[in-house]
Amino acid sequence: MCDVTKDNFTQVYPEIEQSLRHASFIALDLEFTGLTAEGEHVNSLFDSIEYRYQKLKMMAQKFSIPQLGLTAFVKMKEGNKYEAFTYNFYLFPASWGPVDSWLTCQASSLKFLCCHEFDFNKWIYRGVSFLTKKQEEDLRKMMKESPFNLARDIDDDNMMKDIIRKVGDWLSQEQDDVMCIGEFDALQGLYLQLGLKRAFPSVNIEVKDSGEINMIPLLSINSLTSLFCLLLDSIIDNLLGFTKVFQLLIECKKPLVGHNCLTDMVLIYEKFHCPLPEKLSEFKKNVHEMFPCVIDTKTIMKEYRRKFRNLGIDIPSTALQSLYLSVKSAAVKMSVMDTPAIIIHHNSTKYEHAEHLHEAGYDSYVSGYVFLTLAHILSVNNLGQASTTLVTFHDYLQVLKPCTNKLNVIRASVDHLALGGKEDSSSYPHWLHVQAKHSTLDASELADLLQEYSTVDVQLLNQKTAVVAVRSVTGCRKILKDFRKHETLKITRYNVIQHNKVVRYSLWGALALMGTVCVWALFGGKPSDTG
Amino acid sequence: MCDVTKDNFTQVYPEIEQSLRHASFIALDLEFTGLTAEGEHVNSLFDSIEYRYQKLKMMAQKFSIPQLGLTAFVKMKEGNKYEAFTYNFYLFPASWGPVDSWLTCQASSLKFLCCHEFDFNKWIYRGVSFLTKKQEEDLRKMMKESPFNLARDIDDDNMMKDIIRKVGDWLSQEQDDVMCIGEFDALQGLYLQLGLKRAFPSVNIEVKDSGEINMIPLLSINSLTSLFCLLLDSIIDNLLGFTKVFQLLIECKKPLVGHNCLTDMVLIYEKFHCPLPEKLSEFKKNVHEMFPCVIDTKTIMKEYRRKFRNLGIDIPSTALQSLYLSVKSAAVKMSVMDTPAIIIHHNSTKYEHAEHLHEAGYDSYVSGYVFLTLAHILSVNNLGQASTTLVTFHDYLQVLKPCTNKLNVIRASVDHLALGGKEDSSSYPHWLHVQAKHSTLDASELADLLQEYSTVDVQLLNQKTAVVAVRSVTGCRKILKDFRKHETLKITRYNVIQHNKVVRYSLWGALALMGTVCVWALFGGKPSDTG
Repeated sequence: MCDVTKDNFTQVYPEIEQSLRHASFIALDLEFTGLTAEGEHVNSLFDSIEYRYQKLKMMAQKFSIPQLGLTAFVKMKEGNKYEAFTYNFYLFPASWGPVDSWLTCQASSLKFLCCHEFDFNKWIYRGVSFLTKKQEEDLRKMMKESPFNLARDIDDDNMMKDIIRKVGDWLSQEQDDVMCIGEFDALQGLYLQLGLKRAFPSVNIEVKDSGEINMIPLLSINSLTSLFCLLLDSIIDNLLGFTKVFQLLIECKKPLVGHNCLTDMVLIYEKFHCPLPEKLSEFKKNVHEMFPCVIDTKTIMKEYRRKFRNLGIDIPSTALQSLYLSVKSAAVKMSVMDTPAIIIHHNSTKYEHAEHLHEAGYDSYVSGYVFLTLAHILSVNNLGQASTTLVTFHDYLQVLKPCTNKLNVIRASVDHLALGGKEDSSSYPHWLHVQAKHSTLDASELADLLQEYSTVDVQLLNQKTAVVAVRSVTGCRKILKDFRKHETLKITRYNVIQHNKVVRYSLWGALALMGTVCVWALFGGKPSDTG
Repeated sequence: MCDVTKDNFTQVYPEIEQSLRHASFIALDLEFTGLTAEGEHVNSLFDSIEYRYQKLKMMAQKFSIPQLGLTAFVKMKEGNKYEAFTYNFYLFPASWGPVDSWLTCQASSLKFLCCHEFDFNKWIYRGVSFLTKKQEEDLRKMMKESPFNLARDIDDDNMMKDIIRKVGDWLSQEQDDVMCIGEFDALQGLYLQLGLKRAFPSVNIEVKDSGEINMIPLLSINSLTSLFCLLLDSIIDNLLGFTKVFQLLIECKKPLVGHNCLTDMVLIYEKFHCPLPEKLSEFKKNVHEMFPCVIDTKTIMKEYRRKFRNLGIDIPSTALQSLYLSVKSAAVKMSVMDTPAIIIHHNSTKYEHAEHLHEAGYDSYVSGYVFLTLAHILSVNNLGQASTTLVTFHDYLQVLKPCTNKLNVIRASVDHLALGGKEDSSSYPHWLHVQAKHSTLDASELADLLQEYSTVDVQLLNQKTAVVAVRSVTGCRKILKDFRKHETLKITRYNVIQHNKVVRYSLWGALALMGTVCVWALFGGKPSDTG
């Protein structure tokens, strides 16, 4: 079974554990209940990495993970072969006793899941539970201090009252030694036994699993309570659910692979571990300790696109599915180079025969496939053709060292987040200074005008001037050329000395509202504007 | 069809309209994606009506309405018979263009819906859309100002680019008069036509519904745009969905019946009308204008429980289903009095044969059934047995005047909210003053100790004193009696003169944090404590 729900979780868990422990690497993918931020929180080329982290943090506090895919790629004994064990987890937060999570959904994100045939009933009815550390602690504390209160959630007290009344009647009549009061699960049985012990302290009553009650020597209330705690303990263990898999991932310390997986890393931290720390540096440090090797396939593509083109492999888009198809056909073309064969384990053969785009399990499989093939091509290119049959997984990690622990960042003033250390300085965005010659400037009109050249973001400085962040160097050059003799707009490269004063006073005002510092790129550390 | 989804909404709408317009009254019920507040926001007997409104407002901003039930009770021509038309709407917020709602779900609330076999796929895939006034205005504004941008949401621009390229090729070759570029719906067709007109302004191109393109005289770009707006208009009309039913409810001004329906009224205001006003008085005024006659069956029960008991009708619980069963059996007993016969319309016969507790449609039907039967019993009791066959629906409304527009409030310092005017002074809670003789007080221990007497809430004043709000007068009396000679606690009636100073200084501190005034009950307007 590839789909993991609460119905088969306990049963599949040993296989999950084994495959994770034996894996060369593990690929990960998440679906979200919401994604885009509201209003002022939309992503912008003006965002510093610190500011982007704050946005992601807000997002992670609100939204949840309805589905999480893991694929363990286990090296097979013979040949360059990997067996792929894919698990497509449906995840629904626990609600029991003091634990009751809130999750926000964005209408458009759920509609997006609809487009990919997501089963919401499977999610909410049968999703595997999970707990943060705090929630687990709360439960364990309550279990110690007032197990009886915790158990109340099993059923409402009317059941207890009703049964105490019945037992009272039965005791007063003393007809039979045994009476049947219905069927319960083990926890309800113990709960009842505790309640009855309190109601009739002088009488010895036993509640059997079958629901029968009879008068035989009974455990003392102390030993009853400790038995009860044992059972509560197993319930909490059950509620932990996916959190146990997460802890296993931390324990294994296997390379973790994802596609554009910054948001994924932020979300799993918040949902299965702890509230996200205030400071980005602490988040980076903690994640790096938990997962010392994280590889983003989007970063590989950005780093080596030119190299792949030189090798005759043209990859028109880095969107996951498109990348997968390109890499797959490249792999076929390069089959002479003994590209790794990936064998889908029989638990998830459905992925062999059809695309299941945006199903987390499928996407994790595809990410791992892309990673392995790209790593192989780069390794062979590095070590020379003769080496193809000798290339090991270790070589793959070596060749990808420059990409490791760099997570791709979309539409910001930096292009990646470095988990292990400091971000490299970025060669973009390129900054332009725009001045209206006659009338006033309108930010969205200006953006509309320039966006056919490149991705741009506009910050008005005052009614007549703006700073524009331009994503691509080619776009930037073309704008400068096309607007050289423009009637109403004067567009120049942003110049630190010339424009600094204006910018300083007006931008700080606008950005202070965002509650963070994201203007370093404007005042210092900015690479030269030569592109 | 009793279930209304986006698949059958347009088709069922005329029937909905007709039954609402012909109804004697309309019963309403809602399901929620979340209900209970977090931490400091739990309901308390200390809550003033103003403060409770603020809590409900916060709740309504977060949570959504996955299902809404309406039952129109239409008087039949002969006899005391009503035909019940039930509609069980699945509702999912719109997301299109600038509109993209966020909805919060509470894990336990979704689990509650699971217990009642709620179909989440039906909700999210097929739920009827709805818009607030603001959202509708935003869409209409965008439709006027940049219809082209709004249409972009229909498909991503890759489709447009691709087709423009194909058409370019076709035009340059000039082989046939007609080319086929695939199938589109009407909006996509228009969108394409606009795009093509912009790309090839000098050529006349027509996009046919079949997806064929040929070169015949084309509409001007102006008339094309206005045609486009017409289509967008019909899309917005479609997105309005349930909001149109809501507007119909306002227009009809029929008596609206619900069970414990304060939360329902707050939520429908926020979701289908406007953001809830800051002030409770404004909310009450606006709702009263929209719905001049709202009757809460929970209020009827509270007002007339003793009277029903005197008539030999014992109603042990006011929970909806239990109330329904009591009333139903009472109705049978009183059949000699010509209780109204309720005939379920053939669209919802499933409710005739089985309980569908906590399905909004079923609950609305049951609420209406309870209202009608109780109103009849009270009317006959008022007018005398001889009148039974002459009793009219007008008599029902007359006899229930004292209950009308009073919505039940749970666990607060008042027992109802008066839509039409001012709340009556409340006979509860009863206030006790507790003093620890030796050690310090623990609020939750004290609550545990007293809650077996009645519902209680505790506010510590300092380490050794507390005010306790007690729900029932009997419980209050029993506490005073049982604790008269208590070793560690001194419990007395709260006395305005004696305790006022202590209370004033410490309670204001605690309650000021809640940001509202909820202590009027302590300082004035409090009925005498004679119970």
